[in-house]
Amino acid sequence: MTPEQILTTTALASWKQVVARLDQALAPLSDEALHKEVAPGRNRIYYLVGHLAAVNDRMFPMLFAGNRLHPELDEPFLAQPDRKMPDSHSPADLKQALKEVNEKLTEAFEKFRPEEWLQRHSAVSEEDFAKEPLRNRLAVLTSRTNHVSFHLGQIILAR
Amino acid sequence: MTPEQILTTTALASWKQVVARLDQALAPLSDEALHKEVAPGRNRIYYLVGHLAAVNDRMFPMLFAGNRLHPELDEPFLAQPDRKMPDSHSPADLKQALKEVNEKLTEAFEKFRPEEWLQRHSAVSEEDFAKEPLRNRLAVLTSRTNHVSFHLGQIILAR
Repeated sequence: MTPEQILTTTALASWKQVVARLDQALAPLSDEALHKEVAPGRNRIYYLVGHLAAVNDRMFPMLFAGNRLHPELDEPFLAQPDRKMPDSHSPADLKQALKEVNEKLTEAFEKFRPEEWLQRHSAVSEEDFAKEPLRNRLAVLTSRTNHVSFHLGQIILAR
Repeated sequence: MTPEQILTTTALASWKQVVARLDQALAPLSDEALHKEVAPGRNRIYYLVGHLAAVNDRMFPMLFAGNRLHPELDEPFLAQPDRKMPDSHSPADLKQALKEVNEKLTEAFEKFRPEEWLQRHSAVSEEDFAKEPLRNRLAVLTSRTNHVSFHLGQIILAR
């Protein structure tokens, strides 16, 4: 492997590890357990699962990695807070959507070459990117990996 | 910047962002607020502050970045669970220790060249590293960044 390949493979390994831990934390949870709040008055695990699926699903267009799988999750799990709308999905369907999104993203990421990780993401213009090369695709991956970790820390509390 | 420099600078930017968010979350908290549990029966913020300081402090020798600043934190905040020992530090001192550790680490990291991020960390032998080049220093940085995010998600709940 070239130095660039080792660097991007290391970052991708971190994403895969965090996503695997999330999957392990969620897999044993019953529908009832998924409806528990992570702390009194806070988001339910159910909501966080939908929220993570929606946020991660948005990486497909953001990283030019294909079309979104679940745009219908944006309204209930991004635009609205928990419990604002009637539950739109069964807990099992929601867990499956998250798993599917993360698996397809990982498949797409495995094919990225190092120079592709260094290219701009779709939320930054070519003009701005010329001035700010750190607004690259790898920055989106590390940011989303941290976002999963952030909510995983909360999910763990309610189990 | 070379491609390697952009890649490692992007990973370091992620560490800096997460550590800044942690600092922002903790800065306004009173001593009393620091003693709150993140969820009923779970760790107090106080313990998580000491835990993050101890875990991050261990990166100095692990990444060959200098001597530890606070080895005394290992016993109360790593070896023992919360509330097992009498509180050893004032909340203000503990917050200060965490801030100091993270600042000095960041200073050291800013000086790493890309090829240094690709070298082995001290917890892997040269023999094993020859077979597993992903056990490099950058992998430790991304892992610890995720660890901070994980507990930051919990700290946010108790504010």
